[in-house]
Amino acid sequence: MVNFKITILGSSGAVPAYGRYPSAQLVEIQNEHFLVDCGEGAQLQLARFNGNIHRINHIFISHLHGDHYLGLMGLLFTMHLHHREKDLHIYSQHGLHEIMTAQLRYSRSVPNFNIRLHTLSPDSREIIFDNKWLTVETIPLYHKLPCTGFLFREKQKPRRIDKDRLPEGLPHYRMHELKAGFDIKDETGKIVYKNEDLTLPPNQSRSYAYCSDTAYAESIVEQITKVDILYHEATFTEDDKMKAAETLHSTAREAALIARKANAGKLLLGHFSARYRELEPLLTEARTVFTETYLATEGQTFTLPE
Amino acid sequence: MVNFKITILGSSGAVPAYGRYPSAQLVEIQNEHFLVDCGEGAQLQLARFNGNIHRINHIFISHLHGDHYLGLMGLLFTMHLHHREKDLHIYSQHGLHEIMTAQLRYSRSVPNFNIRLHTLSPDSREIIFDNKWLTVETIPLYHKLPCTGFLFREKQKPRRIDKDRLPEGLPHYRMHELKAGFDIKDETGKIVYKNEDLTLPPNQSRSYAYCSDTAYAESIVEQITKVDILYHEATFTEDDKMKAAETLHSTAREAALIARKANAGKLLLGHFSARYRELEPLLTEARTVFTETYLATEGQTFTLPE
Repeated sequence: MVNFKITILGSSGAVPAYGRYPSAQLVEIQNEHFLVDCGEGAQLQLARFNGNIHRINHIFISHLHGDHYLGLMGLLFTMHLHHREKDLHIYSQHGLHEIMTAQLRYSRSVPNFNIRLHTLSPDSREIIFDNKWLTVETIPLYHKLPCTGFLFREKQKPRRIDKDRLPEGLPHYRMHELKAGFDIKDETGKIVYKNEDLTLPPNQSRSYAYCSDTAYAESIVEQITKVDILYHEATFTEDDKMKAAETLHSTAREAALIARKANAGKLLLGHFSARYRELEPLLTEARTVFTETYLATEGQTFTLPE
Repeated sequence: MVNFKITILGSSGAVPAYGRYPSAQLVEIQNEHFLVDCGEGAQLQLARFNGNIHRINHIFISHLHGDHYLGLMGLLFTMHLHHREKDLHIYSQHGLHEIMTAQLRYSRSVPNFNIRLHTLSPDSREIIFDNKWLTVETIPLYHKLPCTGFLFREKQKPRRIDKDRLPEGLPHYRMHELKAGFDIKDETGKIVYKNEDLTLPPNQSRSYAYCSDTAYAESIVEQITKVDILYHEATFTEDDKMKAAETLHSTAREAALIARKANAGKLLLGHFSARYRELEPLLTEARTVFTETYLATEGQTFTLPE
């Protein structure tokens, strides 16, 4: 089975509390390991939950509030001290270059590896990662600072060979044609086997959307429609709706409304305010609107089957 | 009893490992709570070990390697979000101003409280804190970056009234004279009671020296002579002596040699390299030179009686 797995490293809002760490998630899709946000302690949580920092080549930072990036420098120093050589790509809003440069300069550190810093445009969707199987695009969010979420989406997959119906002796190279959706033809161009008789439909392309931090924003619904897993911040409950409005955060119910409107498969809640010791009230609130809701707490993993 | 207590928040060297956190200690002396170094996760560890961030008014940063200061911004943001109003004094080598300013600017944060940043001189001893009861002075260390340790020292204390020998009816204001060491005289200047007959010697002035990071440096011995507790980094064992020399760190044995030469009361070892899962070998190595050695691991507290 090809990997599609999200590991929660931190579930806390701006002020860490009750053992909850600031925002960070490890997203493993196929052979790529992505770090999504990198709050303080992310490297400690990666170690704790068996994440492999050497496999991370891309780090996506949603915005420059401290609880979303303050673990970055520590992680970079550790990569350096572990003799990393591979390029590391970091995607962030404007400003991170200056923040990093100052810290590298005063620690007199020159990393062994190249840091490729990509500055995001907060107001438009951009494809920021694209390989044979997968794209990652930004999701413009609505927060106090320029901020984007990230949508991970597998590309259309090949059709699957139906081994039971495969005629004997068909040469190997024909398989590629079948997977790509072509019929099998002879030299004259005549169809010998119709594709649909020898193949099954492709596995579904899986998707994950990370949306933190944001006020309730229906503008994102169209982009994330039918996403398999939606992580949406839920800093507050409806009882603290005013506080949510004031700080441009969402309530659990609002997160659930977005999930319902987007027809998402599953909703993960996170970025919990320090005012809540217990998180069940947030879960209950969201489930009244969207049943398939879960708490995205430290060490939890969420996977999608192929 | 008047407080003199050190709580270890982090014992790790540059690369955190085995659940050990980067350098940070909470030092409580009398009514003052000091934070000494502030590695990544310091605010999480403070919460875990019941440190009260609102009581911290002075933060001493030994040097600008990430493992000694990367928890600072997170702590400042949390203080801000908790509506701190009191001034906060931060003492650091040159560079922290630029690092902090960039991060405050891009997060569009203006703290509610004043941050008083004091730049340390790495090459000379300075008294950087001085109140009625206590001084803190810097200890020039020998490391890859400008770096100082910190010596906390109670001032000479008053003589203690010996209640058993105190004559009845002596007015209250005379007590101050006795505590200050004066004899009791009558109007003509004649000694009525000798001070030594009514008082006991002062309680001892307690002291704590924090020395991290540093290569073996006998130059510090004179300054820390007879310190009650010496924390000295012990990144490596003697087996890795070459590595210690190369990185300007100390071995456990070297830390113990310094403690012995300084005639310290107690030695605490910390700043352990990620290469050691078990720390007993470092302790054993140091104890062959200096018996009163302890491991300064997370959550440990060390107190000095009055």
